[in-house]
Amino acid sequence: MEIPIVKNILEANEKMADQIREDLKKRGILVQNLISSPGAGKTTLLERTLTDLKDEFNMAVIEGDLQTDNDARRVAATGARTAQINTEGGCHLNSAMIRAALDKIDLEGVDILFIENVGNLVCPVEFDCGEDAKIALLSVAEGDDKPEKYPLLFHLAKAMILNKTDLLPHVDFDTDRAAAFARKLNGDLDIFEVSCRTGDGLRGWYDWLRDARQAKKRA
Amino acid sequence: MEIPIVKNILEANEKMADQIREDLKKRGILVQNLISSPGAGKTTLLERTLTDLKDEFNMAVIEGDLQTDNDARRVAATGARTAQINTEGGCHLNSAMIRAALDKIDLEGVDILFIENVGNLVCPVEFDCGEDAKIALLSVAEGDDKPEKYPLLFHLAKAMILNKTDLLPHVDFDTDRAAAFARKLNGDLDIFEVSCRTGDGLRGWYDWLRDARQAKKRA
Repeated sequence: MEIPIVKNILEANEKMADQIREDLKKRGILVQNLISSPGAGKTTLLERTLTDLKDEFNMAVIEGDLQTDNDARRVAATGARTAQINTEGGCHLNSAMIRAALDKIDLEGVDILFIENVGNLVCPVEFDCGEDAKIALLSVAEGDDKPEKYPLLFHLAKAMILNKTDLLPHVDFDTDRAAAFARKLNGDLDIFEVSCRTGDGLRGWYDWLRDARQAKKRA
Repeated sequence: MEIPIVKNILEANEKMADQIREDLKKRGILVQNLISSPGAGKTTLLERTLTDLKDEFNMAVIEGDLQTDNDARRVAATGARTAQINTEGGCHLNSAMIRAALDKIDLEGVDILFIENVGNLVCPVEFDCGEDAKIALLSVAEGDDKPEKYPLLFHLAKAMILNKTDLLPHVDFDTDRAAAFARKLNGDLDIFEVSCRTGDGLRGWYDWLRDARQAKKRA
């Protein structure tokens, strides 16, 4: 009995996600859905990106959280247009929540929209939010076995950001092993090794964003 | 329409969890449900605990994973009786899975049963598995705001294990701040600061387990 219900929910979600993708395509807005475990560094990556590319792109953020608007306040402090979704305990964002949040943001002139999903390596992966790409973040403190143990995200993501590389000397994390697992799931995956704390390695991620934005404009 | 379905699922889960609790109480088995984000150190905590208390308790483990039996093999290597639940992508364990796993373990003489839940700070908290206590793990690499942002686990847990304290010099984590958030949600929470990598601080956790086991035997 449960399987058809779940299937209907996913189908309805997908349908609305396709509509969102279509609407945002008309506006030429690139949409990135950031997914990771709690504390892998999504908000810090956004703070860095929104600040460093401020003069280049007009960026907006939809912030998903179970509780609190702490993260929304952090990204809004960079000057980016921000809408907050409070899931009230819900474990993922879905396309209906994104639709409602989009009504609260002025999208005029926006080049890139980031969605910061709820911190969860499992459930958010199954709910399309109308994005162009899912971006997987993984902190090196979480262990190099995570792509193997939580494969769906790494299979579907267009890019993987290995964050907190400043901790590499202090943890047992084999970057090659993590990358090999992830690439086995997804041969096209682009991988960036960064420290959002020090700023190290972010240039590659920024170039990737520039390319993705260019490709979107041409589409 | 969705709310009643979810309510029924949770009620059915609760009912079976109560039966499990009753059955294991008759056998005097203490049951601990370990919950955390991916990579916070549940398996390493188990490896340490199963090894260090081997001569004192007869311990068994139910291992929950989306994919792979890597963790089950790690804990089985300590000599503990182990059953694996593969959720095939499912984001949490539930009491029906625990019931099925219990049929696969010889419970004769077992003092303590550990359940290692799927790495997820949200969904596992809502599904009672028949445990005596939920144990929350938090790695200091995840940030001191996690109890505030993911409150339900810290509200319901009997103990919080702050793991990876060896990384404290290298991350921005205020232990007092994390503890204060958690204690605001749960005044009775016992907190242990440990490094499962170095073994530091584990003695307090072991004493807590001994006390919990004693209380269970008397009950």
